[in-house]
Amino acid sequence: MKVLVINCGSSSLKYQLINMENENVLAKGLVERIGIEGSILTQKVNDEKYVIEQPMKDHKVAIKLVLDALIDKEHGVISDMSEISAVGHRVVHGGEKYAGSVLIDENVMEALQECVKLAPLHNPPNIIGINACRELMPSTPMVGVFDTAFHQTLPEEAFIYALPYELYTQYGIRKYGFHGTSHRFVSMTAAQMMGKNIEDLKIITCHLGNGASLSAVKGGKSVDTTMGFTPLAGVAMGTRCGDIDPAIVPFLVKETGMSIEEVDNLMNKKSGVLGVSGVSSDFRDIENAAKDGNKRAELALDVFHYRVRTSIGAYAAALNGVDCIVFTAGLGENSITSRAEICDGLQYLGVNIDADKNNVRGKATEISTADSKVKVFVIPTDEELMIARDTKEIVESAK
Amino acid sequence: MKVLVINCGSSSLKYQLINMENENVLAKGLVERIGIEGSILTQKVNDEKYVIEQPMKDHKVAIKLVLDALIDKEHGVISDMSEISAVGHRVVHGGEKYAGSVLIDENVMEALQECVKLAPLHNPPNIIGINACRELMPSTPMVGVFDTAFHQTLPEEAFIYALPYELYTQYGIRKYGFHGTSHRFVSMTAAQMMGKNIEDLKIITCHLGNGASLSAVKGGKSVDTTMGFTPLAGVAMGTRCGDIDPAIVPFLVKETGMSIEEVDNLMNKKSGVLGVSGVSSDFRDIENAAKDGNKRAELALDVFHYRVRTSIGAYAAALNGVDCIVFTAGLGENSITSRAEICDGLQYLGVNIDADKNNVRGKATEISTADSKVKVFVIPTDEELMIARDTKEIVESAK
Repeated sequence: MKVLVINCGSSSLKYQLINMENENVLAKGLVERIGIEGSILTQKVNDEKYVIEQPMKDHKVAIKLVLDALIDKEHGVISDMSEISAVGHRVVHGGEKYAGSVLIDENVMEALQECVKLAPLHNPPNIIGINACRELMPSTPMVGVFDTAFHQTLPEEAFIYALPYELYTQYGIRKYGFHGTSHRFVSMTAAQMMGKNIEDLKIITCHLGNGASLSAVKGGKSVDTTMGFTPLAGVAMGTRCGDIDPAIVPFLVKETGMSIEEVDNLMNKKSGVLGVSGVSSDFRDIENAAKDGNKRAELALDVFHYRVRTSIGAYAAALNGVDCIVFTAGLGENSITSRAEICDGLQYLGVNIDADKNNVRGKATEISTADSKVKVFVIPTDEELMIARDTKEIVESAK
Repeated sequence: MKVLVINCGSSSLKYQLINMENENVLAKGLVERIGIEGSILTQKVNDEKYVIEQPMKDHKVAIKLVLDALIDKEHGVISDMSEISAVGHRVVHGGEKYAGSVLIDENVMEALQECVKLAPLHNPPNIIGINACRELMPSTPMVGVFDTAFHQTLPEEAFIYALPYELYTQYGIRKYGFHGTSHRFVSMTAAQMMGKNIEDLKIITCHLGNGASLSAVKGGKSVDTTMGFTPLAGVAMGTRCGDIDPAIVPFLVKETGMSIEEVDNLMNKKSGVLGVSGVSSDFRDIENAAKDGNKRAELALDVFHYRVRTSIGAYAAALNGVDCIVFTAGLGENSITSRAEICDGLQYLGVNIDADKNNVRGKATEISTADSKVKVFVIPTDEELMIARDTKEIVESAK
């Protein structure tokens, strides 16, 4: 069975075609500048690149080109579109409706539409992508895999904000959490690497990329996560402020003359390590600046590491202990110093990093010492594979 | 030496006259409805009450009546105003200028005025109270004791928000923290009760009243605290929401049509356990409702306990371990069930509560089991005594 995984943004689209017999990636690609001048598709098969530059006025055109590239006689990997048994779509927001992945039908499409209010930037391109695929491949089953679904197991005391309860019932204001597919994938992989049943484990997963979130996973279920009603909450990120005193928002409106939209934009796009450092939102740039003696770059890293470290502490309390901590995503997989800095101060939990083992990038590795009470892993995330696995399972069980 | 302690609110005033030879409270009182019809002063000497009901158009009139009550032939405790050696004033916000208490002069008054922007509700009545006292007792030294001062030892990574750095330099937006006098008092008392030098201890203090905050205290210095730029941040409180996804603020403005002032008011006055339970902001009412089966009252308590528990976890990480946890203030001193609920789940830290010892209200007591690795105390806070001690020390060293 071959599954096509689609992750649709507002002007971009990522895809992978995965052979589920062996979970090998047959082809992966990226379409950029959809609906903008300079549209470009780049497909990779093994190390060979195939580039198509031509106008793509919308996502339907882009997906048509993706399918063409996949069946291209010279550069493709399949001979006919019918070889694609199912399509798995990444969807950001499933609201409270979906605690797992789902076979897409008209009811699901309606529910996704209802969630647009909760994810006005993310759900619309997801919906457009699904609709385009359904038009082009009307008889191929489609599955929706939600970023929020894994966190639907949060207990009420973790997802309810201490706001008037009516804001939850009337407007759906609660903690949803995101990056769920990633947290699920790496927590499952960690259990395998430990040779243990995930049911018996308390795991804290740290998805640290330009967007960053942590999750407390008990017995394979998410019981808390740092992102909230939106992906702004939690730890400091590349450009997002994470948790701040919410009274700062009215203060800024009152004292600076900024509009509420400008404050929203400031919190999402101009804050985080970019805001503190004044250097960049890219952690590599900030690490380099800090090495060169830039004090604010150093401060930005300290702020980030401190928030992640104390969030791990908070989740150890949520779980009443922790067996294993996982680092994943761009920074989590690649920043040796960030992992070391975050873990330095967690010795009280029984966390001990082996400096040699930690000298690793992008490879699934245990980085704790042999006698570390808490195991620490680097695990490259693979949301596409997780989406493909869900898609296969759902399509097969629906037969 | 006798010290008068004044805590001035916008329409109320609390006071104590303390004999510093033995730290005995000679008299304590409360003035209510200053500048409003129905002004009333209630003074207590031992168990005897003395009530004055007469119009008080402003704080100066109120303080004049306080002095009259203290030297009243029948109900007073001193024969002449000159017996008051110094006055200690509680001041909410000292900004970044004061990391300790200070002898009040014109420069200090100017600095307090500068901090009004940071504490528009609290500093103005504090300033009015100081001015009134200075007019009535021009030759008596006055000391300012700040709620924020104890937290001025926070390291930069704990007090800087991940917002554009200019918001800190231009507007003073950072974490200040509050309840400092209380956190300082109970952490010092805890060290005494443990028979240890506070320099060697890692203490987490939980000031849980209608306003609630936690502090991580390392070697006697605050290294983090849950309140932030304002007293809205941190754990859920009586009517305050504590930390929420800050994106909820713009969402509410956009989706509900509330003004930013209305959202600010909602977060401060209609949220917290009141908002979740819909019952009351008073924890006793909520506990009773929960006992009667009210599910939202139960949820409100769960939310509150969960936030406090995970904040303790976060601060164990900030301190890399914890020797002692202290509960203080209205709820911390009196709610047996809240203390038990908060600590249940902290066994991983080595926290074990003795149910019998925990069956206590308002008394300085160790409530952990003999073999609990982390000691847990109930310690009634005494901000007035702390203010009086500071006042005595500063006035004596200024001589």
